[in-house]
Amino acid sequence: MNEFEFIESIKQPTYHQRGLIKGIGDDAAVFRESTEDIVTAVDTFVEGIHFSKATLDPYYIGYKVLAANVSDMAAMGAIPCYYLVSIVCPKAYPSDYYAMIFQGMRDFASRYKMDVIGGDTVSGNELSISVTVVGTVCQGKARYRHQAEQGDIVFVTGTLGDSQAGLHILENQLDVKNRSHFIQKHQRPEPRVQFAKDMKNIKRLALNDISDGIASEVNEIAQSSYVAIKLMASDLPTSPSLDQFPQHLKQKWVLYGGEDFELVGTVSESDWEAVERAAAQSKISVTQIGYVRNKDTSDHYVYLVEDDHFTPLYKEGYTHLK
Amino acid sequence: MNEFEFIESIKQPTYHQRGLIKGIGDDAAVFRESTEDIVTAVDTFVEGIHFSKATLDPYYIGYKVLAANVSDMAAMGAIPCYYLVSIVCPKAYPSDYYAMIFQGMRDFASRYKMDVIGGDTVSGNELSISVTVVGTVCQGKARYRHQAEQGDIVFVTGTLGDSQAGLHILENQLDVKNRSHFIQKHQRPEPRVQFAKDMKNIKRLALNDISDGIASEVNEIAQSSYVAIKLMASDLPTSPSLDQFPQHLKQKWVLYGGEDFELVGTVSESDWEAVERAAAQSKISVTQIGYVRNKDTSDHYVYLVEDDHFTPLYKEGYTHLK
Repeated sequence: MNEFEFIESIKQPTYHQRGLIKGIGDDAAVFRESTEDIVTAVDTFVEGIHFSKATLDPYYIGYKVLAANVSDMAAMGAIPCYYLVSIVCPKAYPSDYYAMIFQGMRDFASRYKMDVIGGDTVSGNELSISVTVVGTVCQGKARYRHQAEQGDIVFVTGTLGDSQAGLHILENQLDVKNRSHFIQKHQRPEPRVQFAKDMKNIKRLALNDISDGIASEVNEIAQSSYVAIKLMASDLPTSPSLDQFPQHLKQKWVLYGGEDFELVGTVSESDWEAVERAAAQSKISVTQIGYVRNKDTSDHYVYLVEDDHFTPLYKEGYTHLK
Repeated sequence: MNEFEFIESIKQPTYHQRGLIKGIGDDAAVFRESTEDIVTAVDTFVEGIHFSKATLDPYYIGYKVLAANVSDMAAMGAIPCYYLVSIVCPKAYPSDYYAMIFQGMRDFASRYKMDVIGGDTVSGNELSISVTVVGTVCQGKARYRHQAEQGDIVFVTGTLGDSQAGLHILENQLDVKNRSHFIQKHQRPEPRVQFAKDMKNIKRLALNDISDGIASEVNEIAQSSYVAIKLMASDLPTSPSLDQFPQHLKQKWVLYGGEDFELVGTVSESDWEAVERAAAQSKISVTQIGYVRNKDTSDHYVYLVEDDHFTPLYKEGYTHLK
């Protein structure tokens, strides 16, 4: 299969997005968006770094790389519309391996009515997949990290640490309670697009998605907003069956475990009810996990509060270039 | 240097584009474009496939990967505005190697007032760079491959085969006439953005950029438009000093040599003068190289005409997955 045939193979027979003028099949795609702001981000997954054959079937590689990108859209309060895929393909893999990657992407995309509008495929020695996602948000309504303010409530969706527990189960071939729950959270994360959309009437909201662990993401909000954030250790939501794992692993996964793709945010106390309503509407759980205070120069950005002890919490998530 | 520091290092202190609302520094970038159509494409360069350390310094790797993407914008008649960069970084390379790649990109970008609005950096074993470029074009004025029609003139900008000659010189360390001209065409291609923009008043125009060799690009126009295209071999423009190379190499480079990043197009005879005026205005050469005819089912898509002999010309450019 050459590059031309490959591009043909990922081309959609029909498109969902009404603004799309030209999809795959020319030098570039063309679309129109006169009423909303446009949101875009890129994310790359490399075999051996972000996934391995042992823990992720090709179908879920495709599914997950797109889900990770769409999670960035959710964190901006945006709706995903389009994606472009670039893939470096080692010759050692059969072509149906790539077909499965694209099938996973397509199945995920179709749930959001996203269209694939560009791609590039090149041979190489190391499998890597780079996805650019394009979404839209009401004008002026994008959600930023720098919008946290003194007095805000800090909240998080879902539960923390499940994705890393799933990876641990897969890597060590463990037979544990609720095995499939953890594996599903690792292989098929569900970005919180609908929840972010349901919060659209809240005037001010700082938002981040949990790709690198909550410690890292909350530090980003605190630094961008120049505030101090206190997280209550006992309030961090976890799946009950996470307790079956050793305490040190559980703690590592909850604080620093990446790829939960939940949302963490801060909102004024008066808007907290609206956040709870949005969560109920999109049938997910949301938990208050801390609060925002003005930052003194001597303060750290984030503290973990356990039994009245305040421990600085640093950004020790996954930083792939370490 | 970790991922966060790296992203900080490529962040621009100021931005050029007025439509930009949020650049690097959140989960995604945000921009507004209410009056024009948006054009986007992705292109990936892998070391050993698209470039090698022996023939391309890191500065020119960055320069060229962005130029290749911008050439896609030119081929759509669009103006480039933004780019997102994803890079897989082997640990073996010093961090100033990557700094040089980004410097090359930045220098190229600043000539077009393009802003870098997103990025991802991950470690890996194989250097690869994926760039997504976003541009704008007047509503309904994007240029497509499928717009060639019976009676059209086929034209090409600049000269053909120079980039491959430059690569040949670098790979074989040759000392030839006009050495620096060929090397420059290989390392610092100049996409024809201004020329494409200067043709904006021409009503109908089929356009493609020469990334894979003219044989391949003209076949794409002919197939998309379902027409037959005849190219006059003696009219294909070449640099005079290309004659110093063996005839078989010269022919291969002219017809199948990739990465010239010139534009090839078709236009009605009555608009040919407007094409010439646009070329003069942007100070480049343009040459009439053939014509478009209706296609019979028995016809090939493209023929090369030499001394009244018609030879079918196939799409034998660089197809990286072969």
